[in-house]
Amino acid sequence: MHKKSNPSSFYFVTQESAQYYECSFCCDHAVVLVCEDVKFFITDGRYQTEAQQYCNSQTQVRIAHDLFLELSFILKAQKVKELVFDPLLLSVADYQKLTSILKEIRFIPQDNFHQELRKVKTPQEIEKIAYSQQLNREAFANFGSFLSENMGKSEKELQFLSKTFLTHQGEFNLSFEPIFALNGNGAKPHALPESQSVLKNGDWILFDAGLKYENYCSDMTRCGYFDKGVDFFSPKIHPLHQRLYNIVLKAKEYAIENLREGMRAKEVDALARGVIEKEGYGKYFVHSTGHGIGLDIHELPRISPRSEEIISEGMVFSIEPGIYLPDEIGIRLEDLVVIKNGRAQKL
Amino acid sequence: MHKKSNPSSFYFVTQESAQYYECSFCCDHAVVLVCEDVKFFITDGRYQTEAQQYCNSQTQVRIAHDLFLELSFILKAQKVKELVFDPLLLSVADYQKLTSILKEIRFIPQDNFHQELRKVKTPQEIEKIAYSQQLNREAFANFGSFLSENMGKSEKELQFLSKTFLTHQGEFNLSFEPIFALNGNGAKPHALPESQSVLKNGDWILFDAGLKYENYCSDMTRCGYFDKGVDFFSPKIHPLHQRLYNIVLKAKEYAIENLREGMRAKEVDALARGVIEKEGYGKYFVHSTGHGIGLDIHELPRISPRSEEIISEGMVFSIEPGIYLPDEIGIRLEDLVVIKNGRAQKL
Repeated sequence: MHKKSNPSSFYFVTQESAQYYECSFCCDHAVVLVCEDVKFFITDGRYQTEAQQYCNSQTQVRIAHDLFLELSFILKAQKVKELVFDPLLLSVADYQKLTSILKEIRFIPQDNFHQELRKVKTPQEIEKIAYSQQLNREAFANFGSFLSENMGKSEKELQFLSKTFLTHQGEFNLSFEPIFALNGNGAKPHALPESQSVLKNGDWILFDAGLKYENYCSDMTRCGYFDKGVDFFSPKIHPLHQRLYNIVLKAKEYAIENLREGMRAKEVDALARGVIEKEGYGKYFVHSTGHGIGLDIHELPRISPRSEEIISEGMVFSIEPGIYLPDEIGIRLEDLVVIKNGRAQKL
Repeated sequence: MHKKSNPSSFYFVTQESAQYYECSFCCDHAVVLVCEDVKFFITDGRYQTEAQQYCNSQTQVRIAHDLFLELSFILKAQKVKELVFDPLLLSVADYQKLTSILKEIRFIPQDNFHQELRKVKTPQEIEKIAYSQQLNREAFANFGSFLSENMGKSEKELQFLSKTFLTHQGEFNLSFEPIFALNGNGAKPHALPESQSVLKNGDWILFDAGLKYENYCSDMTRCGYFDKGVDFFSPKIHPLHQRLYNIVLKAKEYAIENLREGMRAKEVDALARGVIEKEGYGKYFVHSTGHGIGLDIHELPRISPRSEEIISEGMVFSIEPGIYLPDEIGIRLEDLVVIKNGRAQKL
């Protein structure tokens, strides 16, 4: 029943990333209505000044106490007949309020329609993601140097301290809560940092982190042995794990070199997964190969074994294969790529 | 159509705070079903180990790829006939999935039913909120001392640095993004910290912050003039603003001393608001007097001019009157109280 066609030119969104995409401004309490070329940013009085200052020229700001009631007034005034919404993101209460007021409008549920609309990035968006990732790379380098002076601190404290580098001393937001894991903790898919394990020589570090530049996310994962310090871009590897590390590195590079525009996302997943399976570690690669990224940290396309999505020019996504040996080690390497001239180019 | 009676003994929740309340564990992808004395924690494989380790003894952990499908299986097996849900928190897609599978069950929408259930706190919960606020008080004191050595840093950087103190070097989570505002910025209801304004002698500081101890939130606001340093618990006030500060302080203390069990929340709001109105600043007190607090930073009861809620023993909420002169100054003072022996006691 949830149609999967192109979104109509009449729709509304509430997520901050979608608000920002439409109006160049977002806040934690707003509804954006798009009626072809005209957009309405409906929010409450707290955000009036900023909304009027920052919303783009296509957008009219409307201030209301009850956002969905105001939405219904505008829909009536605009004589809208059909309206697309995302049933994954709209609450039962808001849906019932809208449909009970607007009996004459046909509501069309479309799962993830706004992510569909955003999955091919503009050159301006690609530039922002690239710069976000450049700032992220600097943060990885600086945090690596910092670690050399911080042996003996706990995983938990170091995870916290990593945010100073990622945010560049508070200047930027994080794209997600960073993962800083030592040894076997990096093998747990959703491990929280621990207070007991402290950084010492010989520890294996997995660091997965990203920041936001002008609302656009970056994302990167690097690993390495701690030996008085760690250089995340030229890490030391213990001979015991050199082979595993090389497999993951090869899986990442092989997928990036060989993926092409026009492939299905599951074929891209298979490129990375194939390398790991061939070496006998397929069952230790327990997640998808990657995910789209943009205003949200996880967007379309999903690079998973089940995704039929066609890879297209301008898509931006992560390639992040991994091998996880429970209680021993977690190895993951992650880059972002953009599809340009039919091939993947690292950001 | 949204019933407001006592919640039935069959309901489900998805919010992390509600999961934790029921099962002593929560994660970012779970549904909790309560069937009288038995609880089901439904999550995916990533959280299996932690869920089994930390969920309380009344809870059975179920692992599934599709959480709502698994929920429907359990509901059928348990022969549930009526099920309460919160229509403000359930998506249209999940509701349609559930109701299409479970045609024989009556779904009962109740707005905020789980917050209703949690609005009177147990002695154990009150103890945790009190300890959370004690840690918060220490953070305020330490951050105040720190500021004396950090003149010239920007509002934005100091807001970021405040988190080091609030989290106690990363040991605890924040209850919300702290507000650190200088001079007129404290008068904007939702101002973001700025890079241009730097801390200097003679600045007015408004600091509103809280942390979480064992998932329970604290919340406090203090103000004061920066004169080589600031003591948030015995602040210097510029003579120009001494009168305004005294009015806000009196509004807070008067409300706390005079509120009683059995009053309506709007009467509590009127205690604080009355002090400010009597002095002629009513139109500059632009928000409610307070809010309940617990596992969420904003819970019931709302202490607002429209809230008919009856104040009861064991409720915990903030009292936080303020006066905001646009572009000049924002003054807010906030404490948490618990209703004990019929009166408010500060936490």
